[in-house]
Amino acid sequence: MTVDIAGAAAFLAAHDNYIILCHERPDGDTLGSGYGLCRILRAMGKKANVRCKNEIPEKFVSLILEDQAFEEQTVVAVDIADPSLMGAGIREQYENRVDLCIDHHASNRCFSRLSCIDGTAAAAAELIIALAHELNVPITKEIADCLFTGLTTDTGCFRYANVTPRTHRLAAEMIECGADAAGINTRQFETKTKTYAALERLALESMEFFLNERCAVITVTQEMFEKSGSNESECDAIASLPRQVEGVKVGVTIRQRTDGSYKASVRTYDPVDASLICSRFGGGGHKNAAGCQLGNDLAQAKAALLAAIGEQL
Amino acid sequence: MTVDIAGAAAFLAAHDNYIILCHERPDGDTLGSGYGLCRILRAMGKKANVRCKNEIPEKFVSLILEDQAFEEQTVVAVDIADPSLMGAGIREQYENRVDLCIDHHASNRCFSRLSCIDGTAAAAAELIIALAHELNVPITKEIADCLFTGLTTDTGCFRYANVTPRTHRLAAEMIECGADAAGINTRQFETKTKTYAALERLALESMEFFLNERCAVITVTQEMFEKSGSNESECDAIASLPRQVEGVKVGVTIRQRTDGSYKASVRTYDPVDASLICSRFGGGGHKNAAGCQLGNDLAQAKAALLAAIGEQL
Repeated sequence: MTVDIAGAAAFLAAHDNYIILCHERPDGDTLGSGYGLCRILRAMGKKANVRCKNEIPEKFVSLILEDQAFEEQTVVAVDIADPSLMGAGIREQYENRVDLCIDHHASNRCFSRLSCIDGTAAAAAELIIALAHELNVPITKEIADCLFTGLTTDTGCFRYANVTPRTHRLAAEMIECGADAAGINTRQFETKTKTYAALERLALESMEFFLNERCAVITVTQEMFEKSGSNESECDAIASLPRQVEGVKVGVTIRQRTDGSYKASVRTYDPVDASLICSRFGGGGHKNAAGCQLGNDLAQAKAALLAAIGEQL
Repeated sequence: MTVDIAGAAAFLAAHDNYIILCHERPDGDTLGSGYGLCRILRAMGKKANVRCKNEIPEKFVSLILEDQAFEEQTVVAVDIADPSLMGAGIREQYENRVDLCIDHHASNRCFSRLSCIDGTAAAAAELIIALAHELNVPITKEIADCLFTGLTTDTGCFRYANVTPRTHRLAAEMIECGADAAGINTRQFETKTKTYAALERLALESMEFFLNERCAVITVTQEMFEKSGSNESECDAIASLPRQVEGVKVGVTIRQRTDGSYKASVRTYDPVDASLICSRFGGGGHKNAAGCQLGNDLAQAKAALLAAIGEQL
């Protein structure tokens, strides 16, 4: 059953002993919203803990709360559109007993008993702020830091098309509540590790242009990981680089895995459909961002990928 | 004499036949504010043109208005802290006859007859929006595109420490007035010309670390401009790169000018004061972003700059 903010707030006020689930490979919105909600519930005198399959990345550790001891009764999922996103282990334990899901993905599968979904929100954090208002819980600096992190990370620092006037106004409110906006933005967007900076330099050197310069391809090899001291965990940000070059409609980042095989990340501008390109190789994703596995032969893989891209251009 | 927004608005309402000056090597705030103000004045039935020493960069051409024919009577400077920033030619012509300066640099030299300065504004565009409100001029989509461009470019897409709750609320208002926020952000922040991408690659290769890796220095030479096909007009974005490396407190970009002399752009994190460093070399700017001219001897200039930075670290 779907509920609005008032309905979700009434549910939260009426229950206790919360487990708040974040999605696996957590980002700033699932963690900011999860720990923000956890702080709100505790401020209401309730018991609440956050659970996430993976270790919390270094750049989010300041959001974390220590666990409280209690017997869990109520399960809330935050920013989770599908139970598979909970990750193995967490999924088996909680999939069928989520009481309330708070999410901003219009594609949410409504797998929970109650679903509070707003597809127009740029981040789940927008819904958590609305819940704090509805519950009359004052937004402390710590809550504001969590929720500002959600707003800014899910919008690429207010850059993407999902930003609405409401997103900006809620950001203003979080700053007034004490959020360290500049510090959070610096940590999330302005800081590169030295190893990433070295990898990026090597990756940019590898950039090639194809198809009348409408396609740019970066290749990241295991040798580059070794030379830079970086590794695959830092490679995600590279994927956005080739599409940034003027005139490029399809940006491809091919990275070599430790087993020698290759994987492609494809980023496109409309109307080119990245998921359509990647589906030809058994992969998938969103319209403007998708991925697929390639074989062990780089030249062959690149040629096949470029042929598929050429058909879409 | 300094005036507040109401005083500046009264002046603008009382005069006509405006020349609006932008600073040389124009950025999104001087142009967005200049053309935004020009549109506001024309909406009031007045004559107004914008003047800038340099050609308008491609990514701002959508802001431009065609010139009107009239005899100029009133001179307004926008986002110009010092007459030297008008650039040779414009400076000689206008320096001593600026009637009103609208600016957000606390360091503004108050060289104009009337000065409307708000050092707490993240962008001059914040003052122009306040003037539109005061003058009761409805903000059209075209005006909103100009002023959103000013807000977003001077804040690194709402990333920097100069952003206040007011900045976010004004951005929300501009979006409601029709500003194409996502399109503007893509053009300003997600798109690199091929020549810039090539320059960036060379610049990153030149990066050196000093002072226990707390200072990173990029050097951009005329040879790099030639090799990449780029030029000084594209160099501003380079200045943000050295400070992005983890642990770096002071990022310096030294660029060689066509006359062989060098110019430094200094970006710092608190508590390091960039303007204090640059003032040692006759330059200036903001606390976290400043610039200065250096001599023709790169090694000597770099050593002097590093000594000054070392004192601040």
